[in-house]
Amino acid sequence: MLKEAIYHRPKDNFAYAYDEKTLHIRLRTKKNDVESVQLIYGDPYEWADGRWQMNRSPMKKSGSDELFDYWFISIVPPHRRLRYGFELTAGDERIIYTEKGFYREAPDDDTAYYFCFPFLNKIDVFQAPEWVKDTVWYQIFPERFANGNESLNPEGTLPWGSEDPTPISFFGGDFEGIIQHIDHLVELGINGIYLTPIFKAPSNHKYDTIDYFEIDPQFGDKQTFKRLVDLCHEKGIRVMLDAVFNHCGYYFPPFQDVLKNGENSKYKDWFHIRKFPIRTKPRPNYDTFAFTELMPKLNTENPEVKQYLLDVATYWIREFDIDGWRLDVANEVDHQFWREFRQAVKAVKPDVYILGEIWHDSMPWLRGDQFDAVMNYPFTNGALRFFAKNEVRASQFANIITNVLHSYPINVNEVSFNLLGSHDTPRMLTVCEGNKQKAKLLFLFQLSFTGTPCIYYGDEIGMTGGQDPGCRKCMIWDEKQQDRNLFEHVQKLILLRKTYRSFGSHGELKFIETNDDTNHLVYTKTYGDETILFIINNSEREINVTLPFSCKGKRLTNLWTNEQFAAEADELNAKLPPYGFLIYRVEQWQ
Amino acid sequence: MLKEAIYHRPKDNFAYAYDEKTLHIRLRTKKNDVESVQLIYGDPYEWADGRWQMNRSPMKKSGSDELFDYWFISIVPPHRRLRYGFELTAGDERIIYTEKGFYREAPDDDTAYYFCFPFLNKIDVFQAPEWVKDTVWYQIFPERFANGNESLNPEGTLPWGSEDPTPISFFGGDFEGIIQHIDHLVELGINGIYLTPIFKAPSNHKYDTIDYFEIDPQFGDKQTFKRLVDLCHEKGIRVMLDAVFNHCGYYFPPFQDVLKNGENSKYKDWFHIRKFPIRTKPRPNYDTFAFTELMPKLNTENPEVKQYLLDVATYWIREFDIDGWRLDVANEVDHQFWREFRQAVKAVKPDVYILGEIWHDSMPWLRGDQFDAVMNYPFTNGALRFFAKNEVRASQFANIITNVLHSYPINVNEVSFNLLGSHDTPRMLTVCEGNKQKAKLLFLFQLSFTGTPCIYYGDEIGMTGGQDPGCRKCMIWDEKQQDRNLFEHVQKLILLRKTYRSFGSHGELKFIETNDDTNHLVYTKTYGDETILFIINNSEREINVTLPFSCKGKRLTNLWTNEQFAAEADELNAKLPPYGFLIYRVEQWQ
Repeated sequence: MLKEAIYHRPKDNFAYAYDEKTLHIRLRTKKNDVESVQLIYGDPYEWADGRWQMNRSPMKKSGSDELFDYWFISIVPPHRRLRYGFELTAGDERIIYTEKGFYREAPDDDTAYYFCFPFLNKIDVFQAPEWVKDTVWYQIFPERFANGNESLNPEGTLPWGSEDPTPISFFGGDFEGIIQHIDHLVELGINGIYLTPIFKAPSNHKYDTIDYFEIDPQFGDKQTFKRLVDLCHEKGIRVMLDAVFNHCGYYFPPFQDVLKNGENSKYKDWFHIRKFPIRTKPRPNYDTFAFTELMPKLNTENPEVKQYLLDVATYWIREFDIDGWRLDVANEVDHQFWREFRQAVKAVKPDVYILGEIWHDSMPWLRGDQFDAVMNYPFTNGALRFFAKNEVRASQFANIITNVLHSYPINVNEVSFNLLGSHDTPRMLTVCEGNKQKAKLLFLFQLSFTGTPCIYYGDEIGMTGGQDPGCRKCMIWDEKQQDRNLFEHVQKLILLRKTYRSFGSHGELKFIETNDDTNHLVYTKTYGDETILFIINNSEREINVTLPFSCKGKRLTNLWTNEQFAAEADELNAKLPPYGFLIYRVEQWQ
Repeated sequence: MLKEAIYHRPKDNFAYAYDEKTLHIRLRTKKNDVESVQLIYGDPYEWADGRWQMNRSPMKKSGSDELFDYWFISIVPPHRRLRYGFELTAGDERIIYTEKGFYREAPDDDTAYYFCFPFLNKIDVFQAPEWVKDTVWYQIFPERFANGNESLNPEGTLPWGSEDPTPISFFGGDFEGIIQHIDHLVELGINGIYLTPIFKAPSNHKYDTIDYFEIDPQFGDKQTFKRLVDLCHEKGIRVMLDAVFNHCGYYFPPFQDVLKNGENSKYKDWFHIRKFPIRTKPRPNYDTFAFTELMPKLNTENPEVKQYLLDVATYWIREFDIDGWRLDVANEVDHQFWREFRQAVKAVKPDVYILGEIWHDSMPWLRGDQFDAVMNYPFTNGALRFFAKNEVRASQFANIITNVLHSYPINVNEVSFNLLGSHDTPRMLTVCEGNKQKAKLLFLFQLSFTGTPCIYYGDEIGMTGGQDPGCRKCMIWDEKQQDRNLFEHVQKLILLRKTYRSFGSHGELKFIETNDDTNHLVYTKTYGDETILFIINNSEREINVTLPFSCKGKRLTNLWTNEQFAAEADELNAKLPPYGFLIYRVEQWQ
């Protein structure tokens, strides 16, 4: 066995509380190297005759990526304390792996050898709101969704969809537009909307806030916003807003005050001014988002700034009953701020959802004290590389996805925000080079994956567009120009996700087969007794798939056609057209 | 190169802020597998001609343990942001390692491939008090240090040192005793005392608190305690108390109230009562420390309990100006409590030291939001196995120590609480089976190691004793019975540590040579231009050590004898008696 590949470190994604009673423990070993793993464990204070009282339970292999196998076990320690190690077997070889290293026999004279999960304290358990698991999000870029009140149009507003957007164009999208088109969202079946920033700001994207307590007048007023939220709630739709707390806009009054009064400004410590007088060229001599002088970085360590922003965060929950905050550039703001943010918003509304924008591995924000989720770009990236770009084959895709799933605790994965694109990326159909069959497979995978999926406005009707501003075109409302077939595909997937718990976030995903020649993929989602089998042909050729599962006496339901049949063969055969898929509900799956 | 052995994950001990400007980055590779490593890095927003602008800097090998090499680099990112990867070379082989995996060439079309240290926010930097690095602690178990006021003796107090202690014996140690013997501490040179619990409690160890706001009358009163703290401060000695917040004593009034009133007690949620009525046999049906019914676990998630304990924590700082809190059974209390604890005590005294009792790997408590340090038992264990028990040879010892050092950030190591024993373990001389030469080497290694060393009362004069209660014998005050030679040895080491910054916590440790045949060990400690060379012969045979370092023209000072010489040879030769050691200060060490 390759000792260098064996890895475990308590807490984070390797040993964590799944709920107030249950610990999850994972181990990493070299791929195809270890045959079986037993967890050796016990209460640290359980001794008899001078020997520590150990138990043993087998771990199961929960997946593999390119280099590693992962092993998993769920344990309920009666006294909420655990010391544990691992017994690894391969052929005649057997080793014990503990915090202090490798042994031939499991030491029982001292628990200090072992890994330690000292105590399962409820308050430390990562706990995201339950409703998130059952939510399908829809991201709206308000300036481009629908113009429902032309009287609010900013100067120079262009006729809706009359041309492709530039970084500075305005088309007059507003809240009234969303209200008028709420039926589109209801029909699609989504039950959460995420609005990019709505607060007063000069740009069309509003990431350059002037006033965090005011709605931008181009979108409407507070009454209209309240009406929008109430309408959404009435329709069973949650509302998430975008908190741009890393930086403000150049015209944010406190920053203007610093520009005007320099070192004498009472706001000088609200920012990170490296030198007075302030200059913006060639590069700003104050910290900014990227090197954008229009977005001065806020000093979130300053108690005044902190209080101001926390007041903002709680104000919109308390007054408008919003259901979530998406946090812009979340990883450049200090952890301490986010800890206090969590305390503040959860005190006002315990089941509010906190979603951080982080494009990288994000474990340090997902330990229970800060965010509920991050935007799962590693998922996005893997899914696009396989389905859209054909950069990786089926087995490598399964490796990537398994790696993503094992980078976080399961309770984190269950509420992970899984997107296929956003206002910051080219649209998924464009990445698919216009191939709608590929787009359909992408939606299928996204909507059957663990976590909470998000659809970027217009993707469901086949809109296209490259990198910003291309991906921010006006929503197409002329049904004749919408791809209704794609819409119905997404609609149907959302309905299936709502109907079968195993289909969505509650189901445990298992890759059953990947074939790099045919580029097909088979996986199951299981929740309790319910298993759904997915077969996806990600190639332009028709394929025949034979699965070595005895279906004798089992009832299968094709969830796409509603066809039911009792298969009687010793194997499962299926023919899939190019880019075809099959979704079977299988009773008594083994 | 063995890919499975290559490991890096940002934050924690692999990428962390050393101070408000500096990032430390480490990489782990298979031992003796990789020849050189370059860090590839840049500001995420630094682009030119559509290409990310990367820099390259060589990393140095900072140490090796049994299986792995560790690589290190210190970086000051001009805009406090960093994306980075690693270029590893071995012979003709060259690979790029990033967050997304391995590449042949460093991708420059997207920073999302790379590892991310998003922003160096000052408030998140792990910052322990500066003074801790220069502190040598002395642990006092007050009941057994000195009886200075016999009028306080509890009933049944035995004559001082008249017999070996049992778990329930009393000898009447008190504050007055410490005050009377302060010169012993001053003479030894220590500048911090850590007192095990002093609050009102029935046992001799006082880990079963009745009243957290009262001094146990057997030790004295608050005035005497204040006098002790003031005297210590006058002598330049800091004072750390023991906070037993995981559990209280059985006779803690709120617990007594629950015993009396059951479910109707207003204190019922102060504890974790699993079922009423309360029973203690065969095991308590309420959570306890271990299974000890006399130590009911406190519910630190309960806001009332939290407030009570935080009041305790700040009271003793505010009223008595104590300098540190050692936290008993720290890892069984919730993280959230410790975060609030840190905020509360640092608000009253910003440079108070927070030390957790944790026997295991403790990274989750050392991220800057909770503790300043933990009791470094992995160090203890390694040092005892090599010097005292002869269980491991020199190279394995260096492996263990290197592993300990690489388990935490350097700023964590610098204040780590390095002990050789405590009231919970057999005394170091007893572990050495009475071999004082071994004990001297142990003290030498401890006092020249990175971190803040702690001497358990009486170890410096050669006291012996096995596991508790054996290690809690009365301090010997008859100088004829003290080992003054050992005392002078420790005293001299403390003086050297105080005199040379490189000797102690400020110096960077490097193992130069380990020899398993002779069992000798050579290491250097370096701070700036100052390097000290340590040669330790951990064997019962005389040895000759030849070091291939040209000493031509360099001045060497034997710090133990103060002998100075300008060596002129092309190598450094030294003869060491059994268990001998040499400490050379070397000018211009290369």
